[in-house]
Amino acid sequence: MSLAAVERRLELEQLYTDYVHCLDADELERWPDFFTEDCFYRVTSAENWEAGMPLGLIHATSRNMLKDRVSALREANIYEPQRYRHLVGPIRALGEGPAGLEVEANFLVVRTMQDGEMTMFAAGRYVDELRRDGDAWKFASRNVVLDSRRIDTLLAIPL
Amino acid sequence: MSLAAVERRLELEQLYTDYVHCLDADELERWPDFFTEDCFYRVTSAENWEAGMPLGLIHATSRNMLKDRVSALREANIYEPQRYRHLVGPIRALGEGPAGLEVEANFLVVRTMQDGEMTMFAAGRYVDELRRDGDAWKFASRNVVLDSRRIDTLLAIPL
Amino acid sequence: MSLAAVERRLELEQLYTDYVHCLDADELERWPDFFTEDCFYRVTSAENWEAGMPLGLIHATSRNMLKDRVSALREANIYEPQRYRHLVGPIRALGEGPAGLEVEANFLVVRTMQDGEMTMFAAGRYVDELRRDGDAWKFASRNVVLDSRRIDTLLAIPL
Repeated sequence: MSLAAVERRLELEQLYTDYVHCLDADELERWPDFFTEDCFYRVTSAENWEAGMPLGLIHATSRNMLKDRVSALREANIYEPQRYRHLVGPIRALGEGPAGLEVEANFLVVRTMQDGEMTMFAAGRYVDELRRDGDAWKFASRNVVLDSRRIDTLLAIPL
Repeated sequence: MSLAAVERRLELEQLYTDYVHCLDADELERWPDFFTEDCFYRVTSAENWEAGMPLGLIHATSRNMLKDRVSALREANIYEPQRYRHLVGPIRALGEGPAGLEVEANFLVVRTMQDGEMTMFAAGRYVDELRRDGDAWKFASRNVVLDSRRIDTLLAIPL
Repeated sequence: MSLAAVERRLELEQLYTDYVHCLDADELERWPDFFTEDCFYRVTSAENWEAGMPLGLIHATSRNMLKDRVSALREANIYEPQRYRHLVGPIRALGEGPAGLEVEANFLVVRTMQDGEMTMFAAGRYVDELRRDGDAWKFASRNVVLDSRRIDTLLAIPL
């Protein structure tokens, strides 16, 4: 492993860390910037994923759609105040895919409601393709594959 | 720290990540390959571990015993469909032990049942010894030390 | 990124890992050694943190105060036997702050009671400043920012 390979690995790890800190800090306006302009983003269940079902609970095919989603969330703002905490496991680089470097990582999201109650909100796996975009790595494709199909219908924040 | 030391650290981290992704993907047939042929594998409670009790809930002294265990799991197949998600913390290399490099890491396993219910299944610490075997690192010894002694008696999948 | 930068990153990651393993192993007497002599340590809620409230559930302004806290915990020893397991996410280095290098990291703590019951005890974020002290990195300042304000009033062990 060369120094360049080590550097890339740490850069990718940094991207994953920055991503979850952005969400946990409720800085959703910055969230679309983690993606390429022509990105693919989907939240789906492991069951659907394994069956090759194309649809997802959330589905976007461009960075602009992600921006629209953030605007909608901010305007609607119907959901009860809550905090999210993402724990993301070490990343796993798998090689080159059609849209970029294939990487996956496990995650767990803990949700805390205003009254202090904590619950496991989501657990699963990110299945991603990453691409250099200018001087930064971005998500060209992100599939958020949830272990549970019983998802809060108010799934408000991105994952 | 030399580049070789950095490289080794990242290789070890990769091994831990690959290991949990193998289990979470239910690719149990590949699981014994993470171990040396003469490996030691045990799942035990922190209470027993600290008391120096040799027995464990699961106990194997070779890779072949791990293969047998996988075969038994596949044939019996009595357990309800479920998914596991391992979150493994950063590894901690401790030095050379009798069977190889001593490494430990915290972990948490979330289990999701078919109906979507998520529970914390296990939390604890891996206490390992690792050895080069050909061109890969393998577990010469893995003790899975569980914080809770109240373990599901149907403890089906490896940890 | 130079080899020196890679090295620093891995050293910092090691510090975070060693810190949580120290707590999880109940080796509290070693805990103050992770801090500089003139350290600042506070456990607070995200609500108070965002409101800029200076007080915390726990508040210390020197390493000696941390030692006193450990002594008090050991002498009182009123709490029910329990184990903690910290999962700490990848660290995020943010630059130079007034007291040292600014770093943050997400964490989740699972508590296991004597009867084996596991609960999510705490989730949140470490907001830290780190400084070289001799040949080791130490916490010059650590704010433990908890997502939930509903904290166990017997909050016994450090976080």
